[in-house]
Amino acid sequence: MKTKILSIVALFSIMLFSFKADNPIRIVFFGDSITQAGVNPTGYITKMTQMIANEGLAAKYELIGAGIGGNKVYDLYLRHEEDVIAKKPNIVIIYIGINDVWHKSTSRTGTDADKFERFYNALIKRLQNAGSQVVICTPTVIGERHDNSNENDGDLNFYAGMIRKIAEKNQVKLIDLRKAFMDYEVKNNIENKASGVLTTDRVHLNEAGNTFLAETMWAVIKTL
Amino acid sequence: MKTKILSIVALFSIMLFSFKADNPIRIVFFGDSITQAGVNPTGYITKMTQMIANEGLAAKYELIGAGIGGNKVYDLYLRHEEDVIAKKPNIVIIYIGINDVWHKSTSRTGTDADKFERFYNALIKRLQNAGSQVVICTPTVIGERHDNSNENDGDLNFYAGMIRKIAEKNQVKLIDLRKAFMDYEVKNNIENKASGVLTTDRVHLNEAGNTFLAETMWAVIKTL
Amino acid sequence: MKTKILSIVALFSIMLFSFKADNPIRIVFFGDSITQAGVNPTGYITKMTQMIANEGLAAKYELIGAGIGGNKVYDLYLRHEEDVIAKKPNIVIIYIGINDVWHKSTSRTGTDADKFERFYNALIKRLQNAGSQVVICTPTVIGERHDNSNENDGDLNFYAGMIRKIAEKNQVKLIDLRKAFMDYEVKNNIENKASGVLTTDRVHLNEAGNTFLAETMWAVIKTL
Amino acid sequence: MKTKILSIVALFSIMLFSFKADNPIRIVFFGDSITQAGVNPTGYITKMTQMIANEGLAAKYELIGAGIGGNKVYDLYLRHEEDVIAKKPNIVIIYIGINDVWHKSTSRTGTDADKFERFYNALIKRLQNAGSQVVICTPTVIGERHDNSNENDGDLNFYAGMIRKIAEKNQVKLIDLRKAFMDYEVKNNIENKASGVLTTDRVHLNEAGNTFLAETMWAVIKTL
Repeated sequence: MKTKILSIVALFSIMLFSFKADNPIRIVFFGDSITQAGVNPTGYITKMTQMIANEGLAAKYELIGAGIGGNKVYDLYLRHEEDVIAKKPNIVIIYIGINDVWHKSTSRTGTDADKFERFYNALIKRLQNAGSQVVICTPTVIGERHDNSNENDGDLNFYAGMIRKIAEKNQVKLIDLRKAFMDYEVKNNIENKASGVLTTDRVHLNEAGNTFLAETMWAVIKTL
Repeated sequence: MKTKILSIVALFSIMLFSFKADNPIRIVFFGDSITQAGVNPTGYITKMTQMIANEGLAAKYELIGAGIGGNKVYDLYLRHEEDVIAKKPNIVIIYIGINDVWHKSTSRTGTDADKFERFYNALIKRLQNAGSQVVICTPTVIGERHDNSNENDGDLNFYAGMIRKIAEKNQVKLIDLRKAFMDYEVKNNIENKASGVLTTDRVHLNEAGNTFLAETMWAVIKTL
Repeated sequence: MKTKILSIVALFSIMLFSFKADNPIRIVFFGDSITQAGVNPTGYITKMTQMIANEGLAAKYELIGAGIGGNKVYDLYLRHEEDVIAKKPNIVIIYIGINDVWHKSTSRTGTDADKFERFYNALIKRLQNAGSQVVICTPTVIGERHDNSNENDGDLNFYAGMIRKIAEKNQVKLIDLRKAFMDYEVKNNIENKASGVLTTDRVHLNEAGNTFLAETMWAVIKTL
Repeated sequence: MKTKILSIVALFSIMLFSFKADNPIRIVFFGDSITQAGVNPTGYITKMTQMIANEGLAAKYELIGAGIGGNKVYDLYLRHEEDVIAKKPNIVIIYIGINDVWHKSTSRTGTDADKFERFYNALIKRLQNAGSQVVICTPTVIGERHDNSNENDGDLNFYAGMIRKIAEKNQVKLIDLRKAFMDYEVKNNIENKASGVLTTDRVHLNEAGNTFLAETMWAVIKTL
């Protein structure tokens, strides 16, 4: 009897050990509503966790969602200490910018380009100073048409360009989600629809969108 | 000596006759500030008049500017009777749409897509009913960068697409200025500048812009 | 028996005669979604028709709704021939301006003040030239708070002021709906709520709003 | 001769002593372009320094400007450590909010009401935790007309109301600049002009505006 208990305890210990190895790489996904939904059953963070498990790497990575709907870059700055640094992540994936552009149209409360850059740089520095590796992403889409005829495309392309330069200037890894998504749309969105391929509503991801985002991010994260 | 004078008079008479033939083709250019400036010494209408004279066709065409700064499609509708139909043109070139998009950003007084189409169709019908041939143009540029990163590019591309469909649906001739300008920018705007190639300020044309516009329009008009 | 039938027929004839007298005053209400809803069972035009009947004046007035959702002053101009003049009204009540201001916020497609005035003046002239008496109204509310803290209040007050001047300049009767509504709110909206007193959603009228609008308009119309 | 020099030195020492007493109350004015201009020769901070000197209190107060053009509440948050806390002020006067409202109209980059409140509360807490007394101000004007017909009046009144509640909730002293300015306009802006009484351009203060602002603020600051 005692042996049995002991061996169960041993088994648990092994399981614990294998699931939470001495030091899994802790990754915080820091973003807006897409990231908030990323921890849902079909969200991109949940899917990436499954992909990692399927590759037998469950013990190596711990993925944490830190997304809040409606967030822009300055909202991330306001809450980065409490919501990110306090969790002591090894890696922080910043995926922000859609609302900074989109809210110019919807509520006239977007973010000026120069301030977007200033807050983004300050945020990167703070997270790096706290000991995390920072990875940044270009924004995905506001409308899925692939001929640059979605209302916000001009501005969104410009902000994506800024993020590419921010990555270069700060020498942080870039995940070029906008490029990946647009390449996907060109191949798969034959009818040039505004939504319904990777998104439900031009912005928020459907299951295909979450899967594609998880794959695109994971392809980079696994190389870090 | 007398013969000489007589022959000079004869020459003049012929010239006069050839300049104002019984029925020159009267063309009204109906648009916004770019067309208002089109009748300036270096404006596109003035330049086109010179091109026509250089081709010895001065007697065949009469070009009239009817542009007013800040005009959108509904402003054209308001003044089409007084400013166009009253002049009994054979041809009306409608070149409108920049402010319908641009003013969304600058003064939040742009034109909704569905209303843009409704006013455009009504305007074409009115001008046709008054006996004019109607030719319509896609809008040129709001920003000269050719990678679709000018703030209004998405919306401007969309409105250009609407105008192409309006031309098709109404079976009127189209001058695709936006395509022509963008092709020009790709070839000549090596540094991908926002202004200074064909415009002074991202929208209004410099002399190169006026020349290119005159050439682009004339290439179509001469075929009518 | 025959006499009885005859007298019933006579009675009906009299009723018919009194209800549709040789020349009832035909009034067209020309406006936006509020006027479109005005012909609903609880709409303000329906209610005014009932008030008129209650005062025994049913034969004297014929009320016709000509409202379309989302309309601004230039939309009225586009459709005034077909939707108003074609109906040969004695009186036209123009009640427009909310969307001209509101759409600046919601879709960045409001109407510039100078163009608002130009289209309004042109519209009045067209309707007068067609033989109708024109009556114009200030816009009601975008938000029911009565301390001038509704987002669009500044602009809406400015456009209301423009309409008062347009009435004066064109010497047409004014129904100052904005003043009437604000006076009502001060008295009855004790909690200074943004909606729920006269509107369902800050703009569109609930039944109390439709009743108050009918009363306010009728008080002026009966004097014409 | 020597005595003379000595007495001059003594005089200087007394002057220095009286100007910089052991511990003058250090006040930082934290704001936007109006505060940036406040340290100009005719700016409100310069004028307040003169008023204080005139009252013989020069030694008691040290006024420091910390304004940057275009700043909104979140910009203050970004730079509060470097630009305010680092200066160890006894008192911080926060005067912000005009751009948070105004930029909705000018560049569609205003600040949502809920975020305005969140950043404002966070900023107050940070400054208090660093040991400063915090005083907050309602925004002055965007347009000087006193009948609530300036375009942004509705929204500006709403944000002023939010700031009054923030003061109450955080139990910090409030300087109700908007009320003071509006009372002044009612008395002195007889023609109900949009600018030219206290401002040059509807927002930025002329000399009368700087004087009135200095007086209004000093009346409260002297009581702290």
